[in-house]
Amino acid sequence: MAETIFSKIIDKSLPADIVYETDEIIAFRDISPQAPTHIIIIPKKQISTVNDIELDDAALVGKLFVAAKVIAKSEGLADDGYRLVVNCQEGAGQTVFHLHVHLIGGRSLLWPPG
Amino acid sequence: MAETIFSKIIDKSLPADIVYETDEIIAFRDISPQAPTHIIIIPKKQISTVNDIELDDAALVGKLFVAAKVIAKSEGLADDGYRLVVNCQEGAGQTVFHLHVHLIGGRSLLWPPG
Repeated sequence: MAETIFSKIIDKSLPADIVYETDEIIAFRDISPQAPTHIIIIPKKQISTVNDIELDDAALVGKLFVAAKVIAKSEGLADDGYRLVVNCQEGAGQTVFHLHVHLIGGRSLLWPPG
Repeated sequence: MAETIFSKIIDKSLPADIVYETDEIIAFRDISPQAPTHIIIIPKKQISTVNDIELDDAALVGKLFVAAKVIAKSEGLADDGYRLVVNCQEGAGQTVFHLHVHLIGGRSLLWPPG
C-alpha cells in the first residue's frame, strides 16, 4: 500500500491537530476546513478507498461512525447537527487514498451535498 | 422508536425501487434524486441518527459501507467515483429519523459537500 500524508499523521511524523485517538482510529482537523468544524476521521489500518473495504473491516469502519458521534458531541454539534461525507475515487473529490470520513458542521449545510 | 417511512419500506408496506437487500440491510433509490444515481442504504435495525449508534452497532454500520461498495460497482460507479453522505439531525438536512447513507454519483460532485 502506498504511504499517504495520513500515514505520516498516524505515525506522528507529520504534525496534525489531533482531536481523538484510539488504538484503531485517529481524527484531526482538516487543513482546508469547509466549515467552522471540519474533522477528518480515519482508521489506522491502510484501506485506500470505499472500494477496498472488505467484510472483515466492517466493525472497524463502523467505529469511524462511533468516533464521529463522540467527536460531534465534544465539538458541541450533536444537537444542531453535522454531516459525514466519504468521497470514493478522484472523480468524487477523494484526494488522499486512505479511507477517511469528513465530519462537517457549525454552519448551514445545503442540499445537494456538492 | 417512532416508525418512519423507511420502516414501511423495510416491511414492504410501502413500495420502493429496491436495489440491494440482505437480512440486515436494504437499499433503494431516493425518490428525490440529486444525481443520476442516488441510492439510500439503511440498516433494518431502527437506529435514529448517528448520535444513536452504539459500539455494539459498529459491525452493522460498517456493513452499510460494504453494501455501498457492492452497489456502486453494480451501478458502474466504482471507477468514476461516488460520494457517501450521512446527515445527522435536522440542522444537517436529516429528514427521516432512521439512519441512512446517501450514495450519490453519475455526475460531477462539488466541494464543499453542501
